[in-house]
Amino acid sequence: MKASLYEGNQTFTVVEKDIEAPAAGEVRIKVAYCGVCGTDVHIYHGMMDKRVNIPLTIGHEMSGTVDAVGEGVEGYKVGEKITVRPLDNRGETAADKGHSHIAKALKFIGIDSPGAMQQYWNVPAFTLHKLKEETDLKLAALIEPLSVACHDVRMSRLKKDEVAVVLGGGPIGLLVAMVAKSKGAHVIISEVNDARIKMAEGMGFEVVNPINTDLVAYVDQQTEGGLADVVFEVAGVQASLDVMTEVAGIRGRIVMVAIHGEKKPVDLFKFFWKELELIGARVYEKEDYEESIQLITENKYNFDKIITATKPIDDIQQIFEDIDKNPTGMKFLIDCQ
Amino acid sequence: MKASLYEGNQTFTVVEKDIEAPAAGEVRIKVAYCGVCGTDVHIYHGMMDKRVNIPLTIGHEMSGTVDAVGEGVEGYKVGEKITVRPLDNRGETAADKGHSHIAKALKFIGIDSPGAMQQYWNVPAFTLHKLKEETDLKLAALIEPLSVACHDVRMSRLKKDEVAVVLGGGPIGLLVAMVAKSKGAHVIISEVNDARIKMAEGMGFEVVNPINTDLVAYVDQQTEGGLADVVFEVAGVQASLDVMTEVAGIRGRIVMVAIHGEKKPVDLFKFFWKELELIGARVYEKEDYEESIQLITENKYNFDKIITATKPIDDIQQIFEDIDKNPTGMKFLIDCQ
Repeated sequence: MKASLYEGNQTFTVVEKDIEAPAAGEVRIKVAYCGVCGTDVHIYHGMMDKRVNIPLTIGHEMSGTVDAVGEGVEGYKVGEKITVRPLDNRGETAADKGHSHIAKALKFIGIDSPGAMQQYWNVPAFTLHKLKEETDLKLAALIEPLSVACHDVRMSRLKKDEVAVVLGGGPIGLLVAMVAKSKGAHVIISEVNDARIKMAEGMGFEVVNPINTDLVAYVDQQTEGGLADVVFEVAGVQASLDVMTEVAGIRGRIVMVAIHGEKKPVDLFKFFWKELELIGARVYEKEDYEESIQLITENKYNFDKIITATKPIDDIQQIFEDIDKNPTGMKFLIDCQ
Repeated sequence: MKASLYEGNQTFTVVEKDIEAPAAGEVRIKVAYCGVCGTDVHIYHGMMDKRVNIPLTIGHEMSGTVDAVGEGVEGYKVGEKITVRPLDNRGETAADKGHSHIAKALKFIGIDSPGAMQQYWNVPAFTLHKLKEETDLKLAALIEPLSVACHDVRMSRLKKDEVAVVLGGGPIGLLVAMVAKSKGAHVIISEVNDARIKMAEGMGFEVVNPINTDLVAYVDQQTEGGLADVVFEVAGVQASLDVMTEVAGIRGRIVMVAIHGEKKPVDLFKFFWKELELIGARVYEKEDYEESIQLITENKYNFDKIITATKPIDDIQQIFEDIDKNPTGMKFLIDCQ
């Protein structure tokens, strides 16, 4: 079998390896597709070399089929379509208060242990979610990032007919917008990049470029002064932090999706004055995966438009180089078959 | 009757006035006691001269009895003990989404219109809450600030046996701590001022001075790593903003009670990583007043210890001067009888 290895120094290699038997409690997966996450790009850039045990096969946005079942594993048959929820919570303690998905000792499979950018992959059976027979395996590589969006939207408690503003129209922003739309919300995306604006508009979204249009005035007018019920901060820039407290209406909920690496100025007075809520949201839980699988299987929301390119595993080095050259690209997939 | 007037320039006068009949929809109150709020002190210092229509009778933390009932008002009898919820929401619109207490056009009675630091006071009947026959009218002047605390705690969704850390042991911090205790929570107060520490300890609270003790390590040890379920930020200083995201455990709720006049650095990464929630809380709603009235009437929590001094209305100038000289004082009451 072929396996890719991140070797450090912006380098991937592809090696020939023996196919290993799954250990007790594990399942061997025949990987179909593996998407490249922003985190994988960070790893490629060497930003996570302290955490990653080089050389390592990375990757966690995947689809595949069951190839072999280890001792003690029940309920899985060879050939079944599956995906992996790459959270290893075996170090969970009482101090985590039952929130397994963000347990202090959580290990992320594909970063802290070998991932899916290879042809066969052994994982603990508890990480598996079954797909439907009709689920498209290429789209299914989007289930993991879409589950992030499902989690963000669920944490926001977004309801039908509410107004949701998504700050940032990159891949996660678009997926959040799609899930918000699936709830029957009125969704407005704020994005500054022309290519991304065109793409979001092409998918039927209402998009505002805050450089040309006053976003707060626009939303105020659209909502007769009610402003946004929910704001998703996905952009990770100060301008978004400045506008999020302005564009949220009374008791508005702001979901912090972006990762802000350092302390940033926030208008706490607005939190007090309008009784705003800031909700941190990280990865996903079981129910988010189930919702995401359902959405991908139904495929009502043009998920295929998110996929910028698909290339075979042999071209992995090229894929990461292409991503760097194409900053407005969305989702790049590796075909591991 | 006697009425005090804020005249600007750190000056109060007390004048003789005719007792006025209540207008239609109003009730005339014979004021018993009126507490001095931090906002009243701000007004005295001239910080709100743009908003306040000088000369003005201020004051909104009060107790009293019904003295006369205006046309069209039903359900109130002369002599009944009452207090006022000083929120005039008559400018409310659909854009306020039903949240009357923080409506955009909300007027605060005692700041935007005449207040309670006088012997008789006419107010719209919809602002009244009835007290019990046995409610102590002096303690009842604490109902308004205690309602703020009831609102803060209700917004936090604090449950029995949860751990609540209160950052700041001033009057509102202590009231929040009392309400949190009434829910059966394990309450820890963080306070740096020795006099306030002694006072809180005298009321039976567990107090940590974060200058001498590492608050996060202390709470971590007390909770076997679980840290705080709820944090109340009442201090309004950067050190509290820095510690609030550290001392909160996984999915901890942080209630923003303090007023931060400018944008301040916040660790948004911690919100993402631990799925923290920041909840803005302002004033109170009907149910908070009812809870506060119940707590004051039962008087299980040493509310009288909050009262630093009580002086007659003739001494109002002296009272505000005393407050400035006594920064560790808690609640000063004006006896209007």
